[in-house]
Amino acid sequence: MRIGIDLGGTSIKGGIVDEDGNIILEKSLKTVKGKDENGDRICNGIIKIIRELIEEKNISINQVNLIGIGVPGNVDYKNGIVGRCVNLHWENVHLGNILEKEFGVKVLIDNDANVAAGAEYLFGSTKKANSTLLVTLGTGVGGGAVLNGKIYRGINGAAMEIGHTIVGENFYNCSCGNNGCLETFTSATAIIKYAIKLIEEGRKTIITDIVNGNLNDIDAKIVFNAARKDDVVALEVLDRFVKYLAIGINNAISILDVDSIVIGGGVSAGCDLFMDKLINEINRIKLFKDIPFCTIRKANLGNSAGIIGAAMLDRI
Amino acid sequence: MRIGIDLGGTSIKGGIVDEDGNIILEKSLKTVKGKDENGDRICNGIIKIIRELIEEKNISINQVNLIGIGVPGNVDYKNGIVGRCVNLHWENVHLGNILEKEFGVKVLIDNDANVAAGAEYLFGSTKKANSTLLVTLGTGVGGGAVLNGKIYRGINGAAMEIGHTIVGENFYNCSCGNNGCLETFTSATAIIKYAIKLIEEGRKTIITDIVNGNLNDIDAKIVFNAARKDDVVALEVLDRFVKYLAIGINNAISILDVDSIVIGGGVSAGCDLFMDKLINEINRIKLFKDIPFCTIRKANLGNSAGIIGAAMLDRI
Repeated sequence: MRIGIDLGGTSIKGGIVDEDGNIILEKSLKTVKGKDENGDRICNGIIKIIRELIEEKNISINQVNLIGIGVPGNVDYKNGIVGRCVNLHWENVHLGNILEKEFGVKVLIDNDANVAAGAEYLFGSTKKANSTLLVTLGTGVGGGAVLNGKIYRGINGAAMEIGHTIVGENFYNCSCGNNGCLETFTSATAIIKYAIKLIEEGRKTIITDIVNGNLNDIDAKIVFNAARKDDVVALEVLDRFVKYLAIGINNAISILDVDSIVIGGGVSAGCDLFMDKLINEINRIKLFKDIPFCTIRKANLGNSAGIIGAAMLDRI
Repeated sequence: MRIGIDLGGTSIKGGIVDEDGNIILEKSLKTVKGKDENGDRICNGIIKIIRELIEEKNISINQVNLIGIGVPGNVDYKNGIVGRCVNLHWENVHLGNILEKEFGVKVLIDNDANVAAGAEYLFGSTKKANSTLLVTLGTGVGGGAVLNGKIYRGINGAAMEIGHTIVGENFYNCSCGNNGCLETFTSATAIIKYAIKLIEEGRKTIITDIVNGNLNDIDAKIVFNAARKDDVVALEVLDRFVKYLAIGINNAISILDVDSIVIGGGVSAGCDLFMDKLINEINRIKLFKDIPFCTIRKANLGNSAGIIGAAMLDRI
């Protein structure tokens, strides 16, 4: 029996997970925003959820082999320390120590994208692969990777920041200060910004009607739905998104030579719309035309990946 | 005692290497150009060099722990097979088997950039690092990496093709067919092409005088020398080279989070001229400003890296 915790910016989700990666009991807790430098408030929330899980499942803490936690920030995996974590207002919280003292159980902590990549690798869409790169397309663009069966963390726990690889020139700068980051072409934010740009340039599209002229109401789903109806502007936004996503993924393949790519995050809801185009474009630009191309699939564990991957951190 | 072989497009170089990475005897042999599909001709050359080395050093083949070979092409490391190797006109040559049968000694074969990265990691400019990315800037741009102490090869032995990561838009297409490959901004070829472009646009520069108006005689060294004399056009070529090399290296750091970068290849002869600019530019664009930046240095084993790294393949 294992416990996985998915620590988000607004909630803590926890689950008891069996050895086959099934969540057999799940609980969640909203977190209150605000300062929490030493992590006391959120740590107490994690402890509460773990206590509730073992109580409701009627097991002893001694039956838990591992408590694993995925965190939206930089993690010192070896020492169980969460470095900078903007969403949680944390700096250098010794989360591993705190929870090991509390429960007397082995605790492992990792970045949430790594944890999700691990879950997909073990039980999800890429479970027969040797190496998996997860690309998460949401408000921003992130990534995590399992290479040769192990999560690849890099020297500073800062690997797979694929969203901030520079792949071209864009009409607006990235939040990191650079121009041309993959994130500014392929995040939900990028899709919205480019649609608004075209509309403000006078282009006619059903997107304007759908939001009753309130361009601030445009989201990626609306753009994708308009593309499904063959709206020319929406299709142009989609083509640009695919062009740069193909470049970003192909760049990562040129460096990592993985055998599987998995697309996660909110924008992956549009995979039915863009996956074929994306695969065609990557096949067009890939360097070694005679090497079998790695598989590319939509992540299929959804929101469960965080809990499952965290619970399995000692296996990846 | 070890033997390392550096197999190039025009020569075979071989050396006896001690456990500390010193080449204690070296020999080389020119190869004849032309068809060699089953590898017989070049294999005979390798066998000849190995026999000469052990004879001249007056040792027995039983005293050789490893024969290692670096090859300019795709290698199936596990099975000792050289896949496609355009320079040698090879396709699927079972080099490992051939040499093990001949000498009864363990044989390991790898791509030449991997071998060079391994040599720099063990004995060269980055020997105190945990992970090393070697970027080779020559006629083309290539790379090899040691990650967490092991050469990283990828699923198809095709990893670290950093030269074909796309980093912008360029005025000419890459030999691979794409536009915007790092190689088209930062190879010797790229430096020459951009200098010629500026001259053909009417810009005045001492480069034109140096080559007596024969623009085909321009090479990267001439451009760098002009930049050393503060020639405005040469400095413009250099700045563009630095801008894109910084992007390419920073993209690789964003994915790999290594603690050391080493620059090799013929263009690295200009490191005295561009290294400070390059480091400044990478520091300006890097994502995590508060993480200590990885070191970036010129490769310091030069042409010996191929022999030394090959001889040490069982240690990396």
